[in-house]
Amino acid sequence: MQGKRMEVTSGGERVYDIVIRKSYDDLPGELERLSISGKKLCIVTETGVAGHYLEEVKALLAGRCKDLCAFIFPRGEASKNLDTVSDLYRFLLSHHFDRKDMLIALGGGVTGDLTGFAAATYLRGIDFIQLPTSLLAQVDSSIGGKTGVDFLSYKNMVGAFYMPRLVYINISTLATLSLRQYHSGLGEVIKHGLIQDAAYYRWLKMNKEKIAARDKEIMAVMVEGSCLIKRAVVQQDPGEKGIRAYLNFGHTLGHAIEKLSDFRLTHGECVGIGSVLAASISEKRGYITPEEYRDIKDMFAYFGFPVLPADLNSGDILEATRHDKKMEEGKLKFVLLETPGQAVIRKDVTDQEILESLKRGDMA
Amino acid sequence: MQGKRMEVTSGGERVYDIVIRKSYDDLPGELERLSISGKKLCIVTETGVAGHYLEEVKALLAGRCKDLCAFIFPRGEASKNLDTVSDLYRFLLSHHFDRKDMLIALGGGVTGDLTGFAAATYLRGIDFIQLPTSLLAQVDSSIGGKTGVDFLSYKNMVGAFYMPRLVYINISTLATLSLRQYHSGLGEVIKHGLIQDAAYYRWLKMNKEKIAARDKEIMAVMVEGSCLIKRAVVQQDPGEKGIRAYLNFGHTLGHAIEKLSDFRLTHGECVGIGSVLAASISEKRGYITPEEYRDIKDMFAYFGFPVLPADLNSGDILEATRHDKKMEEGKLKFVLLETPGQAVIRKDVTDQEILESLKRGDMA
Repeated sequence: MQGKRMEVTSGGERVYDIVIRKSYDDLPGELERLSISGKKLCIVTETGVAGHYLEEVKALLAGRCKDLCAFIFPRGEASKNLDTVSDLYRFLLSHHFDRKDMLIALGGGVTGDLTGFAAATYLRGIDFIQLPTSLLAQVDSSIGGKTGVDFLSYKNMVGAFYMPRLVYINISTLATLSLRQYHSGLGEVIKHGLIQDAAYYRWLKMNKEKIAARDKEIMAVMVEGSCLIKRAVVQQDPGEKGIRAYLNFGHTLGHAIEKLSDFRLTHGECVGIGSVLAASISEKRGYITPEEYRDIKDMFAYFGFPVLPADLNSGDILEATRHDKKMEEGKLKFVLLETPGQAVIRKDVTDQEILESLKRGDMA
Repeated sequence: MQGKRMEVTSGGERVYDIVIRKSYDDLPGELERLSISGKKLCIVTETGVAGHYLEEVKALLAGRCKDLCAFIFPRGEASKNLDTVSDLYRFLLSHHFDRKDMLIALGGGVTGDLTGFAAATYLRGIDFIQLPTSLLAQVDSSIGGKTGVDFLSYKNMVGAFYMPRLVYINISTLATLSLRQYHSGLGEVIKHGLIQDAAYYRWLKMNKEKIAARDKEIMAVMVEGSCLIKRAVVQQDPGEKGIRAYLNFGHTLGHAIEKLSDFRLTHGECVGIGSVLAASISEKRGYITPEEYRDIKDMFAYFGFPVLPADLNSGDILEATRHDKKMEEGKLKFVLLETPGQAVIRKDVTDQEILESLKRGDMA
């Protein structure tokens, strides 16, 4: 792969490009297309990623823009809140950032969501670009314009739909992820196959050893395939009125588990657990076969996804789903599988069905 | 006047209506068009307005929606911040508000801006409607989709462009405004004439006695005329790339004065002072005649607008304008008058010109 470029459009108009590369070498050229010479740039990143890539990115951009600064916040989901956003506003004010200036999100999903929300709301909106470094951010959270932060213990409760000007994916950053972070992102990759693309799901199964070994060529194909699915879904439904809701497969119970586990488990791990639970409900309803269910469960197990922690109370999980953003007029919009490769939305999933899946879910 | 209805469009599509009435009697019918029967509604208002209109509005809506609650915050600009927004998020969460539910902003500009920002960001955006009760909110801040809150001492530093579903103006609420609040809103009314409509400005001058006396028929015509100008401007330029910036006439210095006066002066009063200062610069440049400048100054004086407080330091005001949102690549976009009735944007206004206008401005 020399490097791929995908245009993301909205209402037929080009909004931004996703570029997939094996290094940051093309970043200066991509940013020159966005006329950065007259702009101040602020790289927003967290303590972990800063150690790996901040100096490299700074060196590439220094001298090409009007001013370059970096805002570094403590790594982790606990930073994804309005306090960190307020600190960033303060930082931008102290550097006299105006409406023509730009933010650069360098990091995983937390960094992208938080930076995007700050960009959406600082001076009622300034430009930002995404440099996603985690697998989860590369295939999922950096694409589609969802930004936001957690509020109290609710995930992404405060946010905005706001598009980046560019998503620049450097595949090589996947090499520095911990095994757990890498696996965690595979949850969203598998999800993309399950909800929308049976052939891609089969390809993932066939190549699972190479995927696990982080073979660079295979990862490039995998990331590209996953971005294509995500792009297709968000282009068809930018405002989440229809099929975009498919992307929430595994997330209804996943978010509840994530919240109750007090963020012991990663977002990706919880989505994996939630996906298996949603597959379980789909099987009980006769949508997918027992073999298909077993196969999905095995796929997640292969990549080291944990089972539902036994110490979590089923009633608490059920209660937590009631605060889910996907509630509509008090009814939960639950994403199930019609087949492996096609999601379906149901508003009639009962408490009983959820409890049964949870009962089954804590068994390895 | 029986009642007026104006459609506000964006890209040719109808986005929301502005209705002008003499009571709240038509509110239930207007809200039924927005299918409120299945929705929870939260009226957001402040302590002052709550005493006048909350019970009336509640009584009109009770039983017509799924649930009705009210969030009341302390009156005043000091409430327009992220803390109040966070309190409102908490309130909505505790009432299990989901994406289909709706906020109702009942009050002046602070209430509308704050409620709109909360609506723009709660669950990445829920519906809201505006029931503006102050003159300033009726003719200016409720129209056009600008929402936001202050941050540190910067006005509207954090916000979003987000459209209401309806703006329902009850002219009768103007009767309960204090003289100072009413005059304050007239600053924006006069501004609309000055920047875009010489005939409307002349009409205001001709009818100034009746306007001052709050004659109901005259106020209805005045509000309608002002809404028409504002609508025309924001429809042509929703994202503030061009002529929408005209609406900032008087605001660059006005905001700086407002901030430095520590909110002793109202927003409208500061805009009035800023408008006279901008007219002064326009005159010094030879854009408008000394007679036209004198006439504008007299118009604001007639409605009781204060002059620039003598205790404010010119250097401080100049420094404060540097943090203005209307900075573009470090240059201030200053709105001047080409004639009374036509604004013009200039990026070359010098510190010297501003200081001269300030020197002249503190003389009655």
